[in-house]
Amino acid sequence: MFKAMKTRQPIGILGATGMVGQRYIQLLERHPWFEITWLAASDRSSGKSYGEAAKWRLDTPLPERIANMIVSPAEPSAAANGNQTAPKIIFSSIDAPIARELEPRFAAAGCAVISNSSAFRMAPNVPLVLPEVNADHLHLIEEQSWRKQSGGYIVTNSNCTVMGPVLALKPIVDRFGIEQIFATSMQAVSGAGYPGVASMDILDNVVPYIPNEEEKMEEEMLKLLGSLDGHTVKPLIARMSASCNRVPVVDGHTVSVSIKLGKPATREEILAAWAEFRPLARQNLPTAPEQPVEWAPQPDRPQPRLDRNRGNGMAVTVGRLRPCGVLDWKFTVLSHNTIRGAAGATILNAELLASLGKL
Amino acid sequence: MFKAMKTRQPIGILGATGMVGQRYIQLLERHPWFEITWLAASDRSSGKSYGEAAKWRLDTPLPERIANMIVSPAEPSAAANGNQTAPKIIFSSIDAPIARELEPRFAAAGCAVISNSSAFRMAPNVPLVLPEVNADHLHLIEEQSWRKQSGGYIVTNSNCTVMGPVLALKPIVDRFGIEQIFATSMQAVSGAGYPGVASMDILDNVVPYIPNEEEKMEEEMLKLLGSLDGHTVKPLIARMSASCNRVPVVDGHTVSVSIKLGKPATREEILAAWAEFRPLARQNLPTAPEQPVEWAPQPDRPQPRLDRNRGNGMAVTVGRLRPCGVLDWKFTVLSHNTIRGAAGATILNAELLASLGKL
Amino acid sequence: MFKAMKTRQPIGILGATGMVGQRYIQLLERHPWFEITWLAASDRSSGKSYGEAAKWRLDTPLPERIANMIVSPAEPSAAANGNQTAPKIIFSSIDAPIARELEPRFAAAGCAVISNSSAFRMAPNVPLVLPEVNADHLHLIEEQSWRKQSGGYIVTNSNCTVMGPVLALKPIVDRFGIEQIFATSMQAVSGAGYPGVASMDILDNVVPYIPNEEEKMEEEMLKLLGSLDGHTVKPLIARMSASCNRVPVVDGHTVSVSIKLGKPATREEILAAWAEFRPLARQNLPTAPEQPVEWAPQPDRPQPRLDRNRGNGMAVTVGRLRPCGVLDWKFTVLSHNTIRGAAGATILNAELLASLGKL
Amino acid sequence: MFKAMKTRQPIGILGATGMVGQRYIQLLERHPWFEITWLAASDRSSGKSYGEAAKWRLDTPLPERIANMIVSPAEPSAAANGNQTAPKIIFSSIDAPIARELEPRFAAAGCAVISNSSAFRMAPNVPLVLPEVNADHLHLIEEQSWRKQSGGYIVTNSNCTVMGPVLALKPIVDRFGIEQIFATSMQAVSGAGYPGVASMDILDNVVPYIPNEEEKMEEEMLKLLGSLDGHTVKPLIARMSASCNRVPVVDGHTVSVSIKLGKPATREEILAAWAEFRPLARQNLPTAPEQPVEWAPQPDRPQPRLDRNRGNGMAVTVGRLRPCGVLDWKFTVLSHNTIRGAAGATILNAELLASLGKL
Repeated sequence: MFKAMKTRQPIGILGATGMVGQRYIQLLERHPWFEITWLAASDRSSGKSYGEAAKWRLDTPLPERIANMIVSPAEPSAAANGNQTAPKIIFSSIDAPIARELEPRFAAAGCAVISNSSAFRMAPNVPLVLPEVNADHLHLIEEQSWRKQSGGYIVTNSNCTVMGPVLALKPIVDRFGIEQIFATSMQAVSGAGYPGVASMDILDNVVPYIPNEEEKMEEEMLKLLGSLDGHTVKPLIARMSASCNRVPVVDGHTVSVSIKLGKPATREEILAAWAEFRPLARQNLPTAPEQPVEWAPQPDRPQPRLDRNRGNGMAVTVGRLRPCGVLDWKFTVLSHNTIRGAAGATILNAELLASLGKL
Repeated sequence: MFKAMKTRQPIGILGATGMVGQRYIQLLERHPWFEITWLAASDRSSGKSYGEAAKWRLDTPLPERIANMIVSPAEPSAAANGNQTAPKIIFSSIDAPIARELEPRFAAAGCAVISNSSAFRMAPNVPLVLPEVNADHLHLIEEQSWRKQSGGYIVTNSNCTVMGPVLALKPIVDRFGIEQIFATSMQAVSGAGYPGVASMDILDNVVPYIPNEEEKMEEEMLKLLGSLDGHTVKPLIARMSASCNRVPVVDGHTVSVSIKLGKPATREEILAAWAEFRPLARQNLPTAPEQPVEWAPQPDRPQPRLDRNRGNGMAVTVGRLRPCGVLDWKFTVLSHNTIRGAAGATILNAELLASLGKL
Repeated sequence: MFKAMKTRQPIGILGATGMVGQRYIQLLERHPWFEITWLAASDRSSGKSYGEAAKWRLDTPLPERIANMIVSPAEPSAAANGNQTAPKIIFSSIDAPIARELEPRFAAAGCAVISNSSAFRMAPNVPLVLPEVNADHLHLIEEQSWRKQSGGYIVTNSNCTVMGPVLALKPIVDRFGIEQIFATSMQAVSGAGYPGVASMDILDNVVPYIPNEEEKMEEEMLKLLGSLDGHTVKPLIARMSASCNRVPVVDGHTVSVSIKLGKPATREEILAAWAEFRPLARQNLPTAPEQPVEWAPQPDRPQPRLDRNRGNGMAVTVGRLRPCGVLDWKFTVLSHNTIRGAAGATILNAELLASLGKL
Repeated sequence: MFKAMKTRQPIGILGATGMVGQRYIQLLERHPWFEITWLAASDRSSGKSYGEAAKWRLDTPLPERIANMIVSPAEPSAAANGNQTAPKIIFSSIDAPIARELEPRFAAAGCAVISNSSAFRMAPNVPLVLPEVNADHLHLIEEQSWRKQSGGYIVTNSNCTVMGPVLALKPIVDRFGIEQIFATSMQAVSGAGYPGVASMDILDNVVPYIPNEEEKMEEEMLKLLGSLDGHTVKPLIARMSASCNRVPVVDGHTVSVSIKLGKPATREEILAAWAEFRPLARQNLPTAPEQPVEWAPQPDRPQPRLDRNRGNGMAVTVGRLRPCGVLDWKFTVLSHNTIRGAAGATILNAELLASLGKL
């Protein structure tokens, strides 16, 4: 177990005003290890108080201390000095084109950039990590030139839609192998940020397309389930097909999954694989859910409105396990897309890095 | 072509107050061939005027003439005499357990029972017909004992969720064959009737389960795509897997479909199969859409709110045709579940029967 | 009655790609008097085909002819010459700041600018007209300097939320007088244009504020119900209070209204005032609904999803007339906000102007 | 302050499977003073385990202990003996016709019936109490014959829609007087129980009618704001008009309120009245919110999705205070209808009774 820290480590947030940025703030409010000391956002926001700059969209109050913090420019120099405590740990959730330019500059400046952005997820020397699934991939940071020069590095977590299925599939891959994966998502609007999806597009409607989402889901899934092989990750060898849809739900991505196994498994064996899947049981990471994959025995669950907050939004819920007429088994998996699928994932990665002495 | 009728044929409706019953009334209001002369519903409604008995849920006005009609008991004798014109053609949309008992009694009384109910869809001697797909299956009525005795018979249309995919798949089956079918639905609430789905269950939510729906979808799909072989229908030999979900949409079922073909086809060949699929072009059935399968070229279509009314609700819309990482091709298909998928399907079956001289 | 025109008059649209612009296109597709010959939008759109430039959000298909038209710059010179037929009639629905600059330039160029924009609604010499309510206010165009110089002028219709209540109140004002008006709206998202209201703001939510809406509703209501007094309009003398809310509805503004009358009226007298209110009965304007104010006798109506399309979206529906514990009477009124409340209102104004020989 | 109890007092619940019954269970799970020991529901449920009998609709897990409890018949004898601990305190939330028959029988059997049902709210000798507003009305229980005979009594809380406005108005009544009240509600679907509002009725819709709601709102408001006068309550003398609407929101009733004051007040004075309104500050009731009326300074608040959970769902939020063109001031008030407006209200009443030694 990681030793209790005397003082909480300072954290900076890149993209603090966005939907995921708001979740970082919410989830870190009483965090035992981390404390937000620096907030950065686009030029439009910098120089304002956070309370002015952000349109807070969460149903818990914006903490007073955060509301009064002044938003900094998104510059490593702004983080490294000035009136504010300079954090060496940066949680980042910004658009890919901006991340592609900014995150390396923070890493070069010696920061641990723990990112929810998609820019570097598939880079060969950047770990794409979900602590319960592939903690060992973190070794990839040693392949990064920044690490050698300044100590800085980039670690990423996956796309919000991948998170639920990959947690549900990991214990099955480990015990039985998986050769084919079929995933059809019904995704919440919060996944598109703010303002994101127009209400005219989604009220009384389904949008059967989310730009680049299917590609991300397919490639990130296989990298996450892949194995570290020396200096690189070998993706899982499996055929994968994703279909992504947007539905009128605020939070919580629901995914219908079908799989072909490497070797046969009974329903009981799969349920057991999920029940016994507790890879972080001994680590005592504060944000890790006790049971990362919870089974819902009711015939009509999981449902986003009822199940998204399980494990404080960090547990994924599986249900409806039944034989598949085309592959072997099918089931439904649900995860909270801005907690488990984004802000909580970044925080859990940071906790893992801290417990390994890498922060 | 069927000859123009001098007078419109009288139609009776079983289950007149339900959601599909209301659609029958709406769609038949200015029908050139058929005229509603008899309405029946449960005991609770019978004896009342339709205006009193039904909670009209459609956005066109309830026709005055219908509002004033008295609802009859759901009895063949009530249809066959009394103050009302006795119709020999019955459109039925009632719950399966009641249909199982009632529909045979109407058939035995000499009625053509053209049904949206699920009770007899899979009975070996009952045709499950979609005019564009398997009109020839209607010959099965000659296998029914009622037909021989009283002239009556039962013809059914499929479940509302099957309708869209089966229309989209038929021209592909004909040209290339299909070996495997994967279908994940996102279904509108009107499919569950009224009151149907509780708002507490579906606002800000997805329900990943609809009782018996996946079974119906799988077996009805294969019967519809099957071939008439003497006195019986041989279902299509294909592996099929359906996953059914309810989403907060009023009307219009959206389905993500993946298929494995019998022989290779290019994207252009599949688009051509859809464009050229006009099996009823020469029949001039009033309710048949000019183009039963419409292709939407936009990357984010079809969408239920925008596409469900194409072809007066009788055309299905396909979009997003793209390669599938597990099978061969995948696409999205949308159909109006209470028009194309229910009331309109019954009416089109009746028009087909009329054009064949079977009414 | 206005004589049937041999040829349809050419119409230009300012703001063609917006939500109201799309409704103009939809409603004019088969219009007997008018034909769209020119489309203008922001610089971003001009030069593209309309099909490329606009994100069509309506559930009827975008007409092929319109899809292929090239969007012009929003300049009078662009309307007056070039490859396209130069229309002298402009339907305008653009943001107020732009309208403030552009509409006078079109009027100065000799165009009849019939506008849904709010920029000039309250200008003393600009008529704010709803044909059933205050057709005589059109005389104000003679007070406009453009009219004298080039023949051009500006005529406006009201804010979408005012339209329903003002139609319902007009016959009551005429018969009984009104001294106090209380109106609480529940407005559809289409009223905010596209992308307009973010889904994150309105799913599972109510937003009790719409910028400037309450002010517009109060002042426009009184001007519409006012009387032409020589060269100016004297607003109705009445106390008025509006509270405006946004709700998760696609189309249709619902308003709870309470009123204090000038002299007592019974329920029957108010119902009669509505039933007999047919001020355009003899004019035969193509877009005018037969019954502009329809009474819904059911206890739970009007409802936006069920009643918004009455009279092709041009009739308003009133219901729930009952005594008010504070003022005299209260009721609920519903109107389709982008048809009756916007595009249809502009078109009806144009028809009225045409019938008066002013086009 | 009420002394810490050694053991928690046993509580029985009448109507345990309904929406409010579920909230009792959720809110009492870790309650310091009360413990559920008995659950009763309709005949259909009795004899089953609660887990089987109830369709749990909340987003926190059903507590294991409760899931395994057997549902009793709704009979005082069933509560008074048998295998279960017999509670003398009954929380009741059942339909009025059943409450009218059952609640007196429990009171006669010596139970303190603390009820959310509407049956006896307006009975002259039954207190209708909201602890922050009219705790002194509790003395009415001494007027009840059951109290004298068996010690039992009935105490009620108000309708869920009244609760928010009455809390917001109480400090204003106390300081300035109120002569006229106008209230237009936009109510969540959970207020109608389960299954309650059909999704076909509310998706993309507003229903401008809730049976008996306006009458309840008007009469309960005036009784709550009335004064105890010897053996009876004299209602507030004020004119009141309520208009009630259902909107597609899961939880949280939003109400637009306008008022005419007894004597003038500035905006600052009203804000101060709300800020300083902390009538239970010294009582330390576990469920009482620190600040019962919270002011939202943003121009577009309160909003149900963002504000309903303030004060653990027990605080009401007010916003948009502005002058009213007809009366004096208008504002928007929001409260969580199944917590503050129902289950939490009953529990707070019980806490108040306990602190007064009446339990």
